Amino acid sequence: MKQHCDRIIRAGVLVTQDEQRRVLGDAAVAVTGDTIAAVDHADVIVAEWSTDAVSDLSGMLVMPGLVNAHTHVAMTFLRGLADDLPLMQWLTEHIFPVEKHLSAEIVEVSALLGCAEMAATGTTTLCDMYLIEDATFKAVDRAGLRMQGGEGLFAFPSPAYACIEDAFELVRRQHDRYSSHSRIRHAVMPHAVYTSNPEMLARCAALAGELGCGLHIHLAETAAETAQCLASFGKRPIPYCRDLGVLSPRTTVAHAVDVTDDELEILRESGICVAHNPVSNMKLASGAARVPEMLAAGICVGIGTDGAASNNGLNMFTEMKTCALLHKLRYADPTCVPAATVLDMATTGGAKCAGWPETGALVPGAKADLIALDLSAPNLQPLYSAVSHIVYAATGHEVTHTMVGGEFVYENGRHTRFDYPALLREVASIRRWVQKKITG
Amino acid sequence: MKQHCDRIIRAGVLVTQDEQRRVLGDAAVAVTGDTIAAVDHADVIVAEWSTDAVSDLSGMLVMPGLVNAHTHVAMTFLRGLADDLPLMQWLTEHIFPVEKHLSAEIVEVSALLGCAEMAATGTTTLCDMYLIEDATFKAVDRAGLRMQGGEGLFAFPSPAYACIEDAFELVRRQHDRYSSHSRIRHAVMPHAVYTSNPEMLARCAALAGELGCGLHIHLAETAAETAQCLASFGKRPIPYCRDLGVLSPRTTVAHAVDVTDDELEILRESGICVAHNPVSNMKLASGAARVPEMLAAGICVGIGTDGAASNNGLNMFTEMKTCALLHKLRYADPTCVPAATVLDMATTGGAKCAGWPETGALVPGAKADLIALDLSAPNLQPLYSAVSHIVYAATGHEVTHTMVGGEFVYENGRHTRFDYPALLREVASIRRWVQKKITG
Ligand SMILES: [Zn+2]
Ligand SMILES: [Zn+2]
Repeated sequence: MKQHCDRIIRAGVLVTQDEQRRVLGDAAVAVTGDTIAAVDHADVIVAEWSTDAVSDLSGMLVMPGLVNAHTHVAMTFLRGLADDLPLMQWLTEHIFPVEKHLSAEIVEVSALLGCAEMAATGTTTLCDMYLIEDATFKAVDRAGLRMQGGEGLFAFPSPAYACIEDAFELVRRQHDRYSSHSRIRHAVMPHAVYTSNPEMLARCAALAGELGCGLHIHLAETAAETAQCLASFGKRPIPYCRDLGVLSPRTTVAHAVDVTDDELEILRESGICVAHNPVSNMKLASGAARVPEMLAAGICVGIGTDGAASNNGLNMFTEMKTCALLHKLRYADPTCVPAATVLDMATTGGAKCAGWPETGALVPGAKADLIALDLSAPNLQPLYSAVSHIVYAATGHEVTHTMVGGEFVYENGRHTRFDYPALLREVASIRRWVQKKITG
Repeated sequence: MKQHCDRIIRAGVLVTQDEQRRVLGDAAVAVTGDTIAAVDHADVIVAEWSTDAVSDLSGMLVMPGLVNAHTHVAMTFLRGLADDLPLMQWLTEHIFPVEKHLSAEIVEVSALLGCAEMAATGTTTLCDMYLIEDATFKAVDRAGLRMQGGEGLFAFPSPAYACIEDAFELVRRQHDRYSSHSRIRHAVMPHAVYTSNPEMLARCAALAGELGCGLHIHLAETAAETAQCLASFGKRPIPYCRDLGVLSPRTTVAHAVDVTDDELEILRESGICVAHNPVSNMKLASGAARVPEMLAAGICVGIGTDGAASNNGLNMFTEMKTCALLHKLRYADPTCVPAATVLDMATTGGAKCAGWPETGALVPGAKADLIALDLSAPNLQPLYSAVSHIVYAATGHEVTHTMVGGEFVYENGRHTRFDYPALLREVASIRRWVQKKITG
């Protein structure tokens, strides 16, 4: 007697990212509700499961949706506004002056544009920190993607709050609002050491503990950050955060570039996850995180794009390739960070970073978050190794289908949950507003 | 009285790469034969030129076709066969054993697959060296792309020749065959220092001089090459080649990674061009070429992908981005190799490297080699700077049209000169052959 499921997805090649890292030819996935019921060779699934809906992706490579472990998705509206500048000049002369005038409408439209890019390039989950994050929650919810998000917390006023007390109230409200959402989880997100103070960071850590949620912070991104932290607080950023209770297994730190041997050990002991941002770290010349050493130490590492203002995209495929290239160069070793390791970071590793450990692999009981790539793309031909192609040959635009929690949010190259041409008109009006702010 | 042209192409945004590096909104290009007749604002072109054919690309960004300054286009059939290995192990255990059995048919099909990828990602000209290059000439001719190509010359037998005497005869035949082709130019291409000998290199240099054609060679790619050259010939690769007469203004050297200050000066003095391959150099952990210093010294630098076996693509957009990222990281300076510099290398610089100096810019008298990118792609929105988007935001798959010498070889996402599904069937049969060679 067959069991019934909501949908069967047939795959030409299925990259499971299960514990054995199996790659199956002519395979299928059975989905019930937002969850994977079974994964096996197609003939086995068809023999054991009945359904009313079959998605025939037999010319495709099907794999877990990618996890963008660190981003500011609403920053798409600043994409390419200024490039090739030192970090502080870029922030203070170009980004902050525009962000000062930020509105919920701009954040929501920009975040939806970012979701359009992510869905179209195979990202199903993002970990996001930004200003007026309520608007980003709305956009991601509308786009149907999965996220962990939090309001960026600063020791000074932001467009979302007048003072840190208001900020903490806002965080509690956000937490309550999304406490039982099927795709959205909330985390406490102090922006960075250099935009906060010790009291505030300790309160953030305590609040995350009280709420039982994640904590996400930019940490040890540059040598300049280290110098400033030493000057202000007498400690380097990682020991400083450890001493304030910020580093715990619920914590994900973004960047972790300027890290000593001792600090690697602090990161390992504390059980934190690291969100590694290779493109942003290279573009801003911050340096190369010690990812192979982190992995060897057993630290969970995910991959993020950072915001589109410093990347300038939200494409996890090109990010994966850059990740592999960066570490081979840095360690002068072509065997360093091989393709399978990169894919692990972008799927199962990122899933833990983003507070969604039940995603990132196509196994029974996991969320049905998956994507399909068109294997007829010239750059994916011929196919010897699916994992090699995912990391080194794909550019993201081979993605034809993106499913989150059992629902296709992107299908045959079309966004299913919003009107893309209408979105572009809204983006054009934001562009005009930004250009007025710059010239005025 | 209006002048007549064969076609007017209207562009939403036109990146000219002319001497002033003008970027024009609402512009147009008038084309006659294979040549650009005029470039200006659309109203000016329409007022001054009549035509029977208008291509309305007013929602697009139109720019010069990109030049891939160093590749082995037929190596697509080895894409992803083996990765994450040291150079010599990768070559001797995985690439050479398959290449030993190479046939003209495999080269032609694989090269056509590479052309499909290049045309679809905005490359109009390639500089190519490989085995049985006659078959690559045929494929590139069929695909309608522009190229400089040459038989890879070794001091030992190859599938194309039994001995070096035969090889030089083959080179002369190739040179004669393409001496008056509109899109194909021939060059003398000794493979590398470590696969040749002094007599052969000196003869290559003399032959290129006699024929009045280019000379292309892999040079100073790795520290291992330097060590071997020192051990065999008592000189480092660059002085060794200089002393043999190999370095002249007709020469393009690929890689130039392991280069001393003195050797930078040798390269500058000799008037050679450099084809820089950032992805291949990173993937094989060869190192970072000193591109900013080369440019500052006035050396012409182009960008190449190298072969798909070590990249694993032929995509000049992702190559441009990696180029910018690599040098910002290497020099710890975010202002290093800005977007405009990268675009220059991938267009006008590459055109000189590839022996087609009359391409790479959209100016009257230049070849009508241009591409169009769909600006409605989410990753190209919003648009503040066309050059930033080309280098940092585009992935190549936004390309909708590719024109070479006045002819659309790729139009609205379709290859116009060959049957792509039929090509994929031929690629599948080559894949089966390779897999038999590996397992058998
Ligand atoms: Zn960030
Ligand atoms: Zn090469």
